[in-house]
Amino acid sequence: MNKIKAAVVGYGNIGRFVVEALEASVDFEIAGIVRRSLGEKPAELASYPVVTDIAELGKVDVAILCTPTREVEKYAVEYLAAGINTVDSFDIHSKIVDLRASLDKVAKEHGSVAVISAGWDPGSDSVVRALMQAAAPKGLTYTNFGPGMSMGHTVCVKSKPGVKNALSMTIPLGTGIHRRMVYVELEEGARLEDVAAAVKADPYFASDETHVMAVESVDMVKDMGHGVNMTRKGVSGKTQNQLFEFDMKINNPALTAQILVDVARASMKQTPGAYTMIEIPVIDLLPGDREQLIRDLV
Amino acid sequence: MNKIKAAVVGYGNIGRFVVEALEASVDFEIAGIVRRSLGEKPAELASYPVVTDIAELGKVDVAILCTPTREVEKYAVEYLAAGINTVDSFDIHSKIVDLRASLDKVAKEHGSVAVISAGWDPGSDSVVRALMQAAAPKGLTYTNFGPGMSMGHTVCVKSKPGVKNALSMTIPLGTGIHRRMVYVELEEGARLEDVAAAVKADPYFASDETHVMAVESVDMVKDMGHGVNMTRKGVSGKTQNQLFEFDMKINNPALTAQILVDVARASMKQTPGAYTMIEIPVIDLLPGDREQLIRDLV
Repeated sequence: MNKIKAAVVGYGNIGRFVVEALEASVDFEIAGIVRRSLGEKPAELASYPVVTDIAELGKVDVAILCTPTREVEKYAVEYLAAGINTVDSFDIHSKIVDLRASLDKVAKEHGSVAVISAGWDPGSDSVVRALMQAAAPKGLTYTNFGPGMSMGHTVCVKSKPGVKNALSMTIPLGTGIHRRMVYVELEEGARLEDVAAAVKADPYFASDETHVMAVESVDMVKDMGHGVNMTRKGVSGKTQNQLFEFDMKINNPALTAQILVDVARASMKQTPGAYTMIEIPVIDLLPGDREQLIRDLV
Repeated sequence: MNKIKAAVVGYGNIGRFVVEALEASVDFEIAGIVRRSLGEKPAELASYPVVTDIAELGKVDVAILCTPTREVEKYAVEYLAAGINTVDSFDIHSKIVDLRASLDKVAKEHGSVAVISAGWDPGSDSVVRALMQAAAPKGLTYTNFGPGMSMGHTVCVKSKPGVKNALSMTIPLGTGIHRRMVYVELEEGARLEDVAAAVKADPYFASDETHVMAVESVDMVKDMGHGVNMTRKGVSGKTQNQLFEFDMKINNPALTAQILVDVARASMKQTPGAYTMIEIPVIDLLPGDREQLIRDLV
């Protein structure tokens, strides 16, 4: 079997889990890891080339971008222009359509494929949302996140004066409404009420119910688990009250990484251009014989 | 806007709901209804042609097959050869791959498209199963049906001596195991214990926990609601214990009909050939502008 040669670009939290997911996939081989700078090589990468320029890796079929979301476009444009497929989990909702248009143009010019915004939300959740809407075209879908850590909110809390370390948990209250539970390690002499006031006044938190608590150690209350609950109540044809619900409890970076590997596989089967996950057939996410997959899953 | 011209083939339970779903869809127009024989025209079809041969309807883009499942192939082959797309909810799991191969050949020869086995199971459930497997490639998925009426089991009970009318309900017990709750109206002089023994000995029921009860009126305990609960516990990359669950409570023929209309729409966007639902992008199930759908759903 011709294995798919994948490069992992960026080796933070997601990059580490992508390497694991690639190692667990029989149809991939790791061409190497691309990092901004070469420090000491992590032990688990001993058997892989670690480079600063993807060109050093020889033939690469697909680059899995595990960079910060704001750097996705820069890397994708460069790699797509070199004929390398790219996949990313770009998550700034308001800019997804623009990123798709920009990468679509480059990809079509160079015969490559980009799959964008492919994590779990946006990503696999988007597929479920589209399917629920197809099943009951009139109605309301609510996406409820958590309980789980919000990266963006946590960074926001850490930036407040008097905060040594922080964790902002997202708690789902239903119908898309969320509570923020904020745990802070205070710096010497800082007062909880001052920190709480600063957090609650921030636009990140101002419209949500927010509770701020001091803890001895943020590390001791942190886990990487997350969850989603999506519901839709709607109308199929003229029949009311059709009820749909999707629920998951997952390790956040592990699922993002697995989905990235799935769409890297799927990128090999699309015609040149840029795609979101709702634009590619789910069967293309899976390895193996097509007829056997149909036998097993349909 | 150029509306999609759809013919409804067969006017039983599903056919009626398909007409409703087409009427509720802005991008379709009903070319007409094809029936085996023309009796009195049902009042709700007053404004539509009802014919015995699809050729009488003029141009038809897609035929929505609402015939018994065993007649799907005959109609599909005939229509596909005439350049008309077909969609069906063929549900004999062991023969789906064969039907796909047979229709794929005809469709490719005549530039038409077939979407097969497109109801809710097989159908939209298949998409969720494929997605769950992509999200956690190692693990087990259980599909639990009900509570709801099983057509096949009900027909089986009705065939037993002493049974005037019957209803067999499927009750999910988890991990794909089901209980059968059977409600019978007995004929004059028939004994419940004889009927129960005959039912429990039938291969349809022999491997499931089965309870048989007599009721005054089967009609009074019958509803068309159904449900599904699908669960997967698996491994994303090398991370264990990823949990996924999909749940729905729905009117059975209404959802089947809505999905058939969705795939009729999607059939207009595929290249010639035969497809199951996991082979077509979910965005193609939905009407409207592609970029707007991405904005709303991704």
